[in-house]
Amino acid sequence: MTIIGVGLIGGSLGLKCKLEGLAEEVVGVGRGVKNLQDARALGAIDSYTHSAAEGVEEAQLVVLAVPVGSYRDMAEAVKPHLMKGALVTDVGSVKGSVVEMLEKSMPAGVDFVGAHPIAGKEKAGAAHSDPELFEGARCILTPTGKTDEGALAAVTALWEKVGSEVSCMDPYQHDVVLAAVSHLPQITASSLSNAVKDLSRGDLEMLKYCGGGFRDTTRVASSPPEMWRDICLYNREEVLNAVRKLQEVLKEAEARIKEGDGEALLEMFQRARGFRDGILKMSEE
Amino acid sequence: MTIIGVGLIGGSLGLKCKLEGLAEEVVGVGRGVKNLQDARALGAIDSYTHSAAEGVEEAQLVVLAVPVGSYRDMAEAVKPHLMKGALVTDVGSVKGSVVEMLEKSMPAGVDFVGAHPIAGKEKAGAAHSDPELFEGARCILTPTGKTDEGALAAVTALWEKVGSEVSCMDPYQHDVVLAAVSHLPQITASSLSNAVKDLSRGDLEMLKYCGGGFRDTTRVASSPPEMWRDICLYNREEVLNAVRKLQEVLKEAEARIKEGDGEALLEMFQRARGFRDGILKMSEE
Repeated sequence: MTIIGVGLIGGSLGLKCKLEGLAEEVVGVGRGVKNLQDARALGAIDSYTHSAAEGVEEAQLVVLAVPVGSYRDMAEAVKPHLMKGALVTDVGSVKGSVVEMLEKSMPAGVDFVGAHPIAGKEKAGAAHSDPELFEGARCILTPTGKTDEGALAAVTALWEKVGSEVSCMDPYQHDVVLAAVSHLPQITASSLSNAVKDLSRGDLEMLKYCGGGFRDTTRVASSPPEMWRDICLYNREEVLNAVRKLQEVLKEAEARIKEGDGEALLEMFQRARGFRDGILKMSEE
Repeated sequence: MTIIGVGLIGGSLGLKCKLEGLAEEVVGVGRGVKNLQDARALGAIDSYTHSAAEGVEEAQLVVLAVPVGSYRDMAEAVKPHLMKGALVTDVGSVKGSVVEMLEKSMPAGVDFVGAHPIAGKEKAGAAHSDPELFEGARCILTPTGKTDEGALAAVTALWEKVGSEVSCMDPYQHDVVLAAVSHLPQITASSLSNAVKDLSRGDLEMLKYCGGGFRDTTRVASSPPEMWRDICLYNREEVLNAVRKLQEVLKEAEARIKEGDGEALLEMFQRARGFRDGILKMSEE
Protein backbone atom coordinates (compact mmCIF):
# COMPACT_ATOMS: atom_id res chain seq x y z
CA MET A 1 0.00 0.00 0.00
CA THR A 2 1.34 3.40 -0.98
CA ILE A 3 -0.01 6.63 0.43
CA ILE A 4 0.79 9.72 -1.61
CA GLY A 5 0.54 12.65 0.78
CA VAL A 6 1.05 11.65 4.40
CA GLY A 7 -0.99 14.34 6.15
CA LEU A 8 -3.59 13.84 8.83
CA ILE A 9 -5.84 11.68 6.65
CA GLY A 10 -3.08 9.74 4.89
CA GLY A 11 -1.20 9.21 8.15
CA SER A 12 -4.29 8.11 10.07
CA LEU A 13 -5.22 5.65 7.33
CA GLY A 14 -1.72 4.21 7.24
CA LEU A 15 -1.58 3.90 11.01
CA LYS A 16 -4.94 2.16 11.24
CA CYS A 17 -4.08 -0.21 8.38
CA LYS A 18 -0.81 -1.13 10.07
CA LEU A 19 -2.45 -1.65 13.47
CA GLU A 20 -5.19 -3.82 11.99
CA GLY A 21 -2.87 -5.75 9.72
CA LEU A 22 -4.74 -4.51 6.64
CA ALA A 23 -1.50 -3.72 4.83
CA GLU A 24 1.75 -5.58 5.03
CA GLU A 25 3.86 -2.64 4.09
CA VAL A 26 2.91 1.01 3.84
CA VAL A 27 5.05 3.32 1.74
CA GLY A 28 4.64 7.05 2.21
CA VAL A 29 5.26 9.56 -0.54
CA GLY A 30 5.79 13.20 0.37
CA ARG A 31 8.02 16.23 0.27
CA GLY A 32 8.67 17.24 3.88
CA VAL A 33 11.28 15.01 5.50
CA LYS A 34 10.27 15.96 9.03
CA ASN A 35 6.64 15.04 8.38
CA LEU A 36 7.60 11.71 6.80
CA GLN A 37 9.90 10.94 9.72
CA ASP A 38 7.05 11.72 12.13
CA ALA A 39 4.82 9.33 10.19
CA ARG A 40 7.42 6.57 10.31
CA ALA A 41 8.11 7.11 14.01
CA LEU A 42 4.38 6.78 14.71
CA GLY A 43 4.15 3.62 12.66
CA ALA A 44 1.87 5.15 10.03
CA ILE A 45 4.31 4.19 7.27
CA ASP A 46 7.18 1.71 7.06
CA SER A 47 9.31 3.66 4.62
CA TYR A 48 9.15 6.76 2.50
CA THR A 49 10.30 8.28 -0.73
CA HIS A 50 10.06 11.73 -2.26
CA SER A 51 9.28 10.22 -5.65
CA ALA A 52 5.68 9.25 -6.36
CA ALA A 53 6.86 7.30 -9.41
CA GLU A 54 9.16 5.21 -7.28
CA GLY A 55 6.60 4.90 -4.49
CA VAL A 56 3.89 3.31 -6.60
CA GLU A 57 6.05 0.83 -8.51
CA GLU A 58 5.21 -2.19 -6.40
CA ALA A 59 1.92 -1.05 -4.91
CA GLN A 60 -1.29 -3.06 -5.22
CA LEU A 61 -3.18 -0.18 -3.64
CA VAL A 62 -2.37 3.50 -4.11
CA VAL A 63 -4.12 6.12 -2.01
CA LEU A 64 -3.96 9.68 -3.27
CA ALA A 65 -4.10 11.92 -0.21
CA VAL A 66 -2.59 15.18 -1.44
CA PRO A 67 -4.66 18.37 -1.89
CA VAL A 68 -7.00 18.05 -4.87
CA GLY A 69 -5.06 20.71 -6.77
CA SER A 70 -2.06 18.37 -7.02
CA TYR A 71 -4.03 15.43 -8.43
CA ARG A 72 -3.36 16.12 -12.09
CA ASP A 73 0.42 16.43 -11.73
CA MET A 74 0.51 13.42 -9.45
CA ALA A 75 -1.54 11.33 -11.88
CA GLU A 76 0.82 12.27 -14.70
CA ALA A 77 3.82 11.37 -12.57
CA VAL A 78 2.62 7.94 -11.49
CA LYS A 79 0.86 6.84 -14.69
CA PRO A 80 3.85 5.13 -16.36
CA HIS A 81 4.83 3.43 -13.11
CA LEU A 82 1.59 1.89 -11.88
CA MET A 83 1.50 -1.91 -11.77
CA LYS A 84 -0.98 -3.74 -13.96
CA GLY A 85 -3.83 -4.73 -11.66
CA ALA A 86 -3.16 -1.90 -9.22
CA LEU A 87 -6.07 -0.14 -7.58
CA VAL A 88 -5.98 3.64 -7.12
CA THR A 89 -8.26 5.50 -4.75
CA ASP A 90 -8.23 8.96 -3.16
CA VAL A 91 -9.54 10.84 -0.14
CA GLY A 92 -10.36 14.21 -1.70
CA SER A 93 -13.18 16.50 -0.63
CA VAL A 94 -14.16 17.30 -4.21
CA LYS A 95 -15.26 14.62 -6.63
CA GLY A 96 -17.13 15.54 -9.85
CA SER A 97 -14.57 16.80 -12.37
CA VAL A 98 -11.73 15.37 -10.30
CA VAL A 99 -13.01 11.80 -10.56
CA GLU A 100 -13.56 12.27 -14.27
CA MET A 101 -9.97 13.45 -14.73
CA LEU A 102 -8.50 10.62 -12.66
CA GLU A 103 -10.52 7.97 -14.46
CA LYS A 104 -9.15 9.25 -17.76
CA SER A 105 -5.61 9.30 -16.40
CA MET A 106 -5.48 5.64 -15.40
CA PRO A 107 -3.51 3.37 -17.72
CA ALA A 108 -5.12 0.18 -19.01
CA GLY A 109 -5.42 -2.47 -16.32
CA VAL A 110 -5.49 -0.01 -13.43
CA ASP A 111 -8.73 0.71 -11.60
CA PHE A 112 -9.79 3.91 -9.91
CA VAL A 113 -12.50 4.41 -7.28
CA GLY A 114 -13.07 7.84 -5.72
CA ALA A 115 -13.52 8.06 -1.96
CA HIS A 116 -14.14 10.85 0.51
CA PRO A 117 -13.85 9.99 4.19
CA ILE A 118 -15.76 12.69 6.08
CA ALA A 119 -13.32 12.95 8.91
CA GLY A 120 -10.72 15.40 10.02
CA LYS A 121 -9.66 17.75 12.69
CA GLU A 122 -8.22 21.21 12.54
CA LYS A 123 -4.71 19.90 13.23
CA ALA A 124 -2.83 19.03 10.07
CA GLY A 125 0.18 16.80 9.50
CA ALA A 126 1.16 13.20 10.08
CA ALA A 127 2.13 13.97 13.67
CA HIS A 128 -1.57 14.23 14.52
CA SER A 129 -2.42 10.87 12.95
CA ASP A 130 -5.18 9.10 14.83
CA PRO A 131 -6.06 5.48 14.08
CA GLU A 132 -9.60 6.10 15.36
CA LEU A 133 -10.18 9.08 13.08
CA PHE A 134 -12.47 7.09 10.77
CA GLU A 135 -14.33 5.19 13.48
CA GLY A 136 -18.04 5.78 12.97
CA ALA A 137 -17.36 8.46 10.35
CA ARG A 138 -19.08 8.41 7.02
CA CYS A 139 -17.11 7.65 3.89
CA ILE A 140 -18.63 8.45 0.51
CA LEU A 141 -17.50 6.40 -2.47
CA THR A 142 -18.25 7.83 -5.91
CA PRO A 143 -18.34 5.00 -8.45
CA THR A 144 -19.33 5.84 -12.02
CA GLY A 145 -20.41 3.80 -15.03
CA LYS A 146 -16.74 3.03 -15.61
CA THR A 147 -16.03 1.66 -12.15
CA ASP A 148 -15.06 -2.01 -11.85
CA GLU A 149 -17.23 -3.90 -9.38
CA GLY A 150 -14.34 -5.76 -7.81
CA ALA A 151 -12.44 -2.52 -7.31
CA LEU A 152 -15.48 -0.91 -5.69
CA ALA A 153 -15.86 -3.90 -3.36
CA ALA A 154 -12.18 -3.68 -2.37
CA VAL A 155 -12.34 0.04 -1.57
CA THR A 156 -15.60 -0.47 0.32
CA ALA A 157 -13.97 -3.21 2.39
CA LEU A 158 -10.95 -1.01 3.16
CA TRP A 159 -13.05 1.83 4.55
CA GLU A 160 -15.35 -0.47 6.46
CA LYS A 161 -12.38 -2.18 8.07
CA VAL A 162 -11.01 1.14 9.34
CA GLY A 163 -14.37 1.80 10.97
CA SER A 164 -16.24 3.96 8.46
CA GLU A 165 -19.84 3.82 7.40
CA VAL A 166 -19.65 3.59 3.63
CA SER A 167 -22.21 4.90 1.17
CA CYS A 168 -22.12 5.57 -2.55
CA MET A 169 -23.04 8.72 -4.43
CA ASP A 170 -22.69 10.15 -7.91
CA PRO A 171 -19.48 12.28 -7.99
CA TYR A 172 -21.30 15.46 -9.08
CA GLN A 173 -24.10 14.93 -6.57
CA HIS A 174 -21.40 14.53 -3.92
CA ASP A 175 -20.13 18.01 -4.76
CA VAL A 176 -23.59 19.55 -4.47
CA VAL A 177 -24.13 17.97 -1.06
CA LEU A 178 -20.69 18.73 0.34
CA ALA A 179 -20.79 22.34 -0.86
CA ALA A 180 -23.78 22.84 1.44
CA VAL A 181 -22.88 20.76 4.48
CA SER A 182 -19.09 21.14 4.56
CA HIS A 183 -17.62 23.69 2.18
CA LEU A 184 -20.05 26.44 3.13
CA PRO A 185 -19.44 26.00 6.89
CA GLN A 186 -15.70 26.33 6.20
CA ILE A 187 -16.02 29.52 4.17
CA THR A 188 -18.43 30.88 6.76
CA ALA A 189 -16.04 30.20 9.63
CA SER A 190 -13.09 31.71 7.80
CA SER A 191 -15.11 34.74 6.73
CA LEU A 192 -16.33 35.29 10.28
CA SER A 193 -12.76 35.19 11.53
CA ASN A 194 -11.73 37.73 8.90
CA ALA A 195 -14.72 39.95 9.67
CA VAL A 196 -13.98 40.00 13.40
CA LYS A 197 -10.37 40.78 12.59
CA ASP A 198 -11.45 43.76 10.49
CA LEU A 199 -13.93 44.94 13.13
CA SER A 200 -11.31 44.78 15.87
CA ARG A 201 -8.82 46.94 13.95
CA GLY A 202 -6.00 45.40 15.91
CA ASP A 203 -7.50 46.26 19.30
CA LEU A 204 -6.17 43.38 21.41
CA GLU A 205 -8.10 44.54 24.45
CA MET A 206 -11.29 43.89 22.49
CA LEU A 207 -10.26 40.41 21.45
CA LYS A 208 -9.91 39.27 25.05
CA TYR A 209 -13.68 39.02 25.05
CA CYS A 210 -13.95 36.43 22.31
CA GLY A 211 -15.85 33.67 24.10
CA GLY A 212 -17.07 30.20 23.25
CA GLY A 213 -19.34 31.55 20.52
CA PHE A 214 -16.44 32.91 18.51
CA ARG A 215 -14.25 29.91 19.31
CA ASP A 216 -16.72 27.28 18.11
CA THR A 217 -18.16 29.19 15.19
CA THR A 218 -14.65 29.68 13.78
CA ARG A 219 -13.16 26.30 14.75
CA VAL A 220 -12.73 25.01 11.22
CA ALA A 221 -11.04 28.28 10.19
CA SER A 222 -7.92 26.68 11.67
CA SER A 223 -7.97 23.97 8.97
CA PRO A 224 -5.23 23.79 6.30
CA PRO A 225 -5.60 26.77 3.90
CA GLU A 226 -4.16 24.86 0.93
CA MET A 227 -6.83 22.20 1.14
CA TRP A 228 -9.64 24.76 1.23
CA ARG A 229 -8.15 26.82 -1.57
CA ASP A 230 -8.27 23.70 -3.73
CA ILE A 231 -11.82 22.86 -2.71
CA CYS A 232 -12.94 26.35 -3.74
CA LEU A 233 -11.11 26.00 -7.05
CA TYR A 234 -12.32 22.49 -7.88
CA ASN A 235 -15.88 22.78 -6.64
CA ARG A 236 -16.25 26.35 -7.74
CA GLU A 237 -19.79 26.41 -9.09
CA GLU A 238 -21.37 24.58 -6.17
CA VAL A 239 -19.40 26.55 -3.60
CA LEU A 240 -20.38 29.81 -5.29
CA ASN A 241 -24.01 28.76 -5.23
CA ALA A 242 -23.78 28.01 -1.49
CA VAL A 243 -21.95 31.25 -0.66
CA ARG A 244 -24.59 33.22 -2.56
CA LYS A 245 -27.32 31.51 -0.60
CA LEU A 246 -25.64 32.51 2.66
CA GLN A 247 -25.38 36.08 1.43
CA GLU A 248 -29.11 36.08 0.65
CA VAL A 249 -29.88 34.79 4.12
CA LEU A 250 -27.64 37.43 5.71
CA LYS A 251 -29.22 40.17 3.65
CA GLU A 252 -32.60 39.08 4.93
CA ALA A 253 -31.25 39.02 8.49
CA GLU A 254 -29.83 42.51 8.02
CA ALA A 255 -33.24 43.76 6.86
CA ARG A 256 -34.98 42.24 9.88
CA ILE A 257 -32.47 43.80 12.26
CA LYS A 258 -32.65 47.15 10.51
CA GLU A 259 -36.45 47.17 10.70
CA GLY A 260 -36.31 46.13 14.34
CA ASP A 261 -38.87 43.45 13.51
CA GLY A 262 -38.91 41.38 16.68
CA GLU A 263 -41.30 38.74 15.41
CA ALA A 264 -39.35 38.20 12.21
CA LEU A 265 -36.09 38.01 14.18
CA LEU A 266 -37.55 35.48 16.57
CA GLU A 267 -38.75 33.38 13.65
CA MET A 268 -35.29 33.56 12.08
CA PHE A 269 -33.49 32.34 15.22
CA GLN A 270 -36.16 29.70 15.87
CA ARG A 271 -35.90 28.31 12.35
CA ALA A 272 -32.12 28.08 12.64
CA ARG A 273 -32.32 26.32 16.00
CA GLY A 274 -35.04 23.94 14.84
CA PHE A 275 -33.05 22.91 11.79
CA ARG A 276 -29.80 22.42 13.69
CA ASP A 277 -31.41 20.48 16.53
CA GLY A 278 -33.17 18.30 13.95
CA ILE A 279 -29.88 17.47 12.23
CA LEU A 280 -28.20 16.59 15.49
CA LYS A 281 -31.06 14.39 16.55
CA MET A 282 -30.92 12.63 13.19
CA SER A 283 -27.19 11.98 13.50
CA GLU A 284 -27.67 10.55 16.98
CA GLU A 285 -30.17 8.01 15.74
CA MET B 1 -30.89 38.11 47.12
CA THR B 2 -33.59 38.07 44.48
CA ILE B 3 -33.07 36.77 40.97
CA ILE B 4 -35.60 37.96 38.43
CA GLY B 5 -35.56 35.43 35.61
CA VAL B 6 -34.28 32.04 36.71
CA GLY B 7 -32.84 30.73 33.46
CA LEU B 8 -29.43 29.22 32.88
CA ILE B 9 -27.55 32.33 34.04
CA GLY B 10 -29.89 33.27 36.90
CA GLY B 11 -30.09 29.67 38.09
CA SER B 12 -26.35 29.12 37.92
CA LEU B 13 -25.69 32.31 39.85
CA GLY B 14 -28.22 31.39 42.54
CA LEU B 15 -26.81 27.90 42.86
CA LYS B 16 -23.22 29.08 43.18
CA CYS B 17 -24.19 31.77 45.72
CA LYS B 18 -26.04 29.20 47.83
CA LEU B 19 -23.19 26.68 47.65
CA GLU B 20 -20.61 29.31 48.62
CA GLY B 21 -22.78 30.87 51.30
CA LEU B 22 -22.75 34.20 49.46
CA ALA B 23 -26.48 34.65 49.97
CA GLU B 24 -28.54 33.61 52.96
CA GLU B 25 -31.74 33.34 51.01
CA VAL B 26 -32.32 33.38 47.28
CA VAL B 27 -35.76 34.27 45.98
CA GLY B 28 -36.55 33.46 42.36
CA VAL B 29 -39.00 35.45 40.28
CA GLY B 30 -40.40 33.92 37.12
CA ARG B 31 -43.43 32.83 35.16
CA GLY B 32 -43.01 29.13 34.45
CA VAL B 33 -43.84 27.02 37.51
CA LYS B 34 -41.99 23.94 36.23
CA ASN B 35 -38.80 25.94 35.70
CA LEU B 36 -39.02 27.53 39.16
CA GLN B 37 -39.63 24.13 40.75
CA ASP B 38 -36.58 22.78 38.93
CA ALA B 39 -34.55 25.69 40.29
CA ARG B 40 -35.73 25.04 43.83
CA ALA B 41 -35.15 21.31 43.56
CA LEU B 42 -31.57 22.00 42.44
CA GLY B 43 -31.01 24.41 45.31
CA ALA B 44 -30.59 27.43 43.02
CA ILE B 45 -33.37 29.27 44.86
CA ASP B 46 -35.02 28.83 48.26
CA SER B 47 -38.44 30.07 47.26
CA TYR B 48 -40.20 31.68 44.35
CA THR B 49 -42.93 34.07 43.38
CA HIS B 50 -44.51 35.10 40.11
CA SER B 51 -44.58 38.72 41.24
CA ALA B 52 -41.42 40.75 40.76
CA ALA B 53 -42.87 43.43 43.02
CA GLU B 54 -43.29 40.95 45.84
CA GLY B 55 -39.96 39.29 45.12
CA VAL B 56 -37.85 42.42 45.59
CA GLU B 57 -39.52 43.79 48.70
CA GLU B 58 -36.95 42.54 51.17
CA ALA B 59 -33.98 42.12 48.85
CA GLN B 60 -30.63 43.81 49.48
CA LEU B 61 -29.45 42.59 46.10
CA VAL B 62 -31.63 42.23 43.01
CA VAL B 63 -30.27 40.53 39.90
CA LEU B 64 -32.14 41.15 36.67
CA ALA B 65 -31.69 38.04 34.51
CA VAL B 66 -34.60 38.23 32.09
CA PRO B 67 -34.12 38.91 28.35
CA VAL B 68 -33.10 42.53 27.76
CA GLY B 69 -36.42 43.24 26.05
CA SER B 70 -38.26 42.76 29.35
CA TYR B 71 -36.04 45.17 31.33
CA ARG B 72 -38.22 48.23 30.96
CA ASP B 73 -41.43 46.53 32.10
CA MET B 74 -39.59 44.82 34.92
CA ALA B 75 -38.01 48.08 36.08
CA GLU B 76 -41.43 49.75 36.15
CA ALA B 77 -42.89 46.85 38.10
CA VAL B 78 -40.25 46.75 40.82
CA LYS B 79 -39.52 50.48 41.17
CA PRO B 80 -42.09 51.24 43.90
CA HIS B 81 -41.12 48.12 45.85
CA LEU B 82 -37.31 48.31 46.02
CA MET B 83 -35.87 48.77 49.48
CA LYS B 84 -33.91 51.91 50.27
CA GLY B 85 -30.26 50.88 50.08
CA ALA B 86 -30.92 48.00 47.71
CA LEU B 87 -28.45 47.23 44.96
CA VAL B 88 -29.70 46.26 41.52
CA THR B 89 -27.54 44.59 38.89
CA ASP B 90 -28.18 42.64 35.71
CA VAL B 91 -26.60 40.03 33.44
CA GLY B 92 -27.68 41.29 30.03
CA SER B 93 -25.67 40.94 26.84
CA VAL B 94 -26.45 44.50 25.74
CA LYS B 95 -25.47 47.50 27.82
CA GLY B 96 -25.40 51.01 26.27
CA SER B 97 -28.97 52.28 26.08
CA VAL B 98 -30.12 49.58 28.47
CA VAL B 99 -27.87 50.76 31.31
CA GLU B 100 -28.95 54.33 30.66
CA MET B 101 -32.60 53.35 30.94
CA LEU B 102 -32.09 51.31 34.10
CA GLU B 103 -30.09 54.06 35.79
CA LYS B 104 -32.95 56.46 35.14
CA SER B 105 -35.49 53.96 36.45
CA MET B 106 -33.93 53.50 39.86
CA PRO B 107 -35.67 55.28 42.75
CA ALA B 108 -33.63 57.48 45.10
CA GLY B 109 -31.45 55.43 47.43
CA VAL B 110 -31.18 52.46 45.09
CA ASP B 111 -27.97 51.77 43.18
CA PHE B 112 -27.57 50.14 39.81
CA VAL B 113 -24.45 48.56 38.30
CA GLY B 114 -24.60 46.83 34.91
CA ALA B 115 -22.89 43.48 34.52
CA HIS B 116 -22.43 41.01 31.70
CA PRO B 117 -21.00 37.62 32.57
CA ILE B 118 -19.61 36.15 29.34
CA ALA B 119 -20.76 32.64 30.01
CA GLY B 120 -23.43 30.37 28.75
CA LYS B 121 -24.16 27.19 26.95
CA GLU B 122 -26.69 26.34 24.31
CA LYS B 123 -28.99 24.67 26.84
CA ALA B 124 -31.45 27.07 28.38
CA GLY B 125 -33.47 26.88 31.58
CA ALA B 126 -32.83 26.52 35.30
CA ALA B 127 -32.60 22.74 34.94
CA HIS B 128 -29.19 23.20 33.29
CA SER B 129 -27.85 25.41 36.09
CA ASP B 130 -24.17 24.87 36.65
CA PRO B 131 -22.39 26.38 39.66
CA GLU B 132 -19.10 26.32 37.74
CA LEU B 133 -20.51 28.23 34.77
CA PHE B 134 -18.72 31.44 35.74
CA GLU B 135 -15.44 29.83 36.78
CA GLY B 136 -12.65 31.49 34.83
CA ALA B 137 -15.16 33.33 32.63
CA ARG B 138 -14.91 37.03 32.03
CA CYS B 139 -17.49 39.35 33.50
CA ILE B 140 -17.73 42.89 32.19
CA LEU B 141 -19.08 45.57 34.54
CA THR B 142 -20.22 48.80 32.96
CA PRO B 143 -20.09 51.59 35.54
CA THR B 144 -20.90 55.14 34.42
CA GLY B 145 -20.37 58.59 35.90
CA LYS B 146 -23.45 57.96 38.01
CA THR B 147 -22.26 54.69 39.54
CA ASP B 148 -21.69 54.56 43.30
CA GLU B 149 -18.22 53.28 44.20
CA GLY B 150 -19.46 51.08 47.02
CA ALA B 151 -22.05 49.50 44.73
CA LEU B 152 -19.41 48.85 42.09
CA ALA B 153 -17.16 47.23 44.70
CA ALA B 154 -20.03 45.01 45.88
CA VAL B 155 -20.89 43.79 42.38
CA THR B 156 -17.21 43.26 41.61
CA ALA B 157 -16.88 41.15 44.75
CA LEU B 158 -19.95 39.08 43.85
CA TRP B 159 -18.65 38.12 40.42
CA GLU B 160 -15.15 37.48 41.67
CA LYS B 161 -16.50 35.18 44.37
CA VAL B 162 -18.38 33.08 41.83
CA GLY B 163 -15.13 32.63 39.92
CA SER B 164 -15.22 35.30 37.21
CA GLU B 165 -12.48 37.54 35.99
CA VAL B 166 -13.96 41.01 36.30
CA SER B 167 -13.15 44.01 34.14
CA CYS B 168 -14.86 47.35 33.55
CA MET B 169 -15.89 48.97 30.30
CA ASP B 170 -18.00 51.89 29.14
CA PRO B 171 -21.53 50.55 28.37
CA TYR B 172 -21.49 51.75 24.76
CA GLN B 173 -17.98 50.48 24.17
CA HIS B 174 -19.17 47.13 25.55
CA ASP B 175 -21.80 46.99 22.81
CA VAL B 176 -19.26 47.71 20.08
CA VAL B 177 -16.97 44.96 21.33
CA LEU B 178 -19.67 42.36 21.92
CA ALA B 179 -21.30 43.01 18.54
CA ALA B 180 -18.05 41.85 16.95
CA VAL B 181 -16.96 39.00 19.21
CA SER B 182 -20.31 37.55 20.30
CA HIS B 183 -23.36 38.91 18.49
CA LEU B 184 -21.88 38.48 15.02
CA PRO B 185 -20.85 34.84 15.65
CA GLN B 186 -24.42 34.13 16.76
CA ILE B 187 -26.03 35.68 13.69
CA THR B 188 -23.46 33.93 11.51
CA ALA B 189 -24.20 30.53 13.03
CA SER B 190 -27.96 31.00 12.74
CA SER B 191 -27.68 32.26 9.18
CA LEU B 192 -25.49 29.33 8.20
CA SER B 193 -28.05 26.94 9.65
CA ASN B 194 -30.81 28.67 7.68
CA ALA B 195 -28.72 28.69 4.49
CA VAL B 196 -27.97 24.96 4.71
CA LYS B 197 -31.65 24.35 5.34
CA ASP B 198 -32.54 26.26 2.18
CA LEU B 199 -29.84 24.52 0.16
CA SER B 200 -31.00 21.07 1.27
CA ARG B 201 -34.60 21.68 0.21
CA GLY B 202 -35.73 19.08 2.70
CA ASP B 203 -33.49 16.35 1.32
CA LEU B 204 -32.83 14.33 4.47
CA GLU B 205 -30.42 12.02 2.67
CA MET B 206 -28.20 15.04 2.07
CA LEU B 207 -28.26 16.14 5.68
CA LYS B 208 -26.81 12.83 6.87
CA TYR B 209 -23.48 14.19 5.68
CA CYS B 210 -23.40 17.19 7.98
CA GLY B 211 -20.14 16.59 9.82
CA GLY B 212 -18.19 18.27 12.57
CA GLY B 213 -17.74 21.41 10.49
CA PHE B 214 -21.46 22.07 10.33
CA ARG B 215 -22.01 20.98 13.92
CA ASP B 216 -19.42 23.31 15.44
CA THR B 217 -19.94 26.26 13.14
CA THR B 218 -23.65 26.29 14.01
CA ARG B 219 -23.38 25.32 17.70
CA VAL B 220 -24.63 28.63 19.09
CA ALA B 221 -27.60 28.53 16.70
CA SER B 222 -29.16 26.30 19.35
CA SER B 223 -29.20 29.20 21.86
CA PRO B 224 -32.48 30.75 23.07
CA PRO B 225 -34.10 32.69 20.18
CA GLU B 226 -35.78 35.21 22.50
CA MET B 227 -32.47 36.30 23.96
CA TRP B 228 -30.94 36.86 20.55
CA ARG B 229 -33.97 38.64 19.18
CA ASP B 230 -33.59 41.12 22.04
CA ILE B 231 -29.87 41.52 21.48
CA CYS B 232 -30.54 42.39 17.82
CA LEU B 233 -33.21 44.87 18.85
CA TYR B 234 -31.24 46.55 21.63
CA ASN B 235 -27.82 46.59 20.02
CA ARG B 236 -29.18 47.25 16.59
CA GLU B 237 -26.67 49.73 15.20
CA GLU B 238 -23.58 47.84 16.28
CA VAL B 239 -25.00 44.48 15.20
CA LEU B 240 -25.93 45.94 11.81
CA ASN B 241 -22.43 47.29 11.40
CA ALA B 242 -20.97 43.86 12.17
CA VAL B 243 -23.36 42.00 9.87
CA ARG B 244 -22.51 44.40 7.05
CA LYS B 245 -18.82 43.78 7.60
CA LEU B 246 -19.39 40.04 7.29
CA GLN B 247 -21.33 40.61 4.09
CA GLU B 248 -18.41 42.62 2.69
CA VAL B 249 -16.00 39.84 3.57
CA LEU B 250 -18.25 37.23 1.98
CA LYS B 251 -18.64 39.31 -1.15
CA GLU B 252 -14.87 39.47 -1.42
CA ALA B 253 -14.67 35.69 -0.86
CA GLU B 254 -17.28 35.16 -3.56
CA ALA B 255 -15.23 37.24 -6.00
CA ARG B 256 -12.07 35.28 -5.26
CA ILE B 257 -13.86 31.97 -5.76
CA LYS B 258 -15.54 33.20 -8.94
CA GLU B 259 -12.23 34.37 -10.38
CA GLY B 260 -10.61 31.09 -9.37
CA ASP B 261 -7.79 33.12 -7.86
CA GLY B 262 -5.83 30.48 -5.96
CA GLU B 263 -3.34 32.87 -4.42
CA ALA B 264 -6.04 35.21 -3.17
CA LEU B 265 -8.02 32.28 -1.78
CA LEU B 266 -4.99 30.92 0.00
CA GLU B 267 -4.32 34.33 1.52
CA MET B 268 -7.94 34.55 2.67
CA PHE B 269 -7.88 31.18 4.46
CA GLN B 270 -4.42 31.88 5.89
CA ARG B 271 -5.47 35.23 7.30
CA ALA B 272 -8.53 33.66 8.93
CA ARG B 273 -6.49 30.87 10.48
CA GLY B 274 -3.76 33.22 11.67
CA PHE B 275 -6.25 35.49 13.38
CA ARG B 276 -8.15 32.67 15.06
CA ASP B 277 -5.03 30.87 16.23
CA GLY B 278 -3.73 34.17 17.60
CA ILE B 279 -6.90 34.73 19.61
CA LEU B 280 -6.83 31.23 21.03
CA LYS B 281 -3.20 31.57 22.00
CA MET B 282 -3.95 34.86 23.70
CA SER B 283 -6.81 33.36 25.69
CA GLU B 284 -4.61 30.49 26.84
CA GLU B 285 -2.03 32.89 28.24
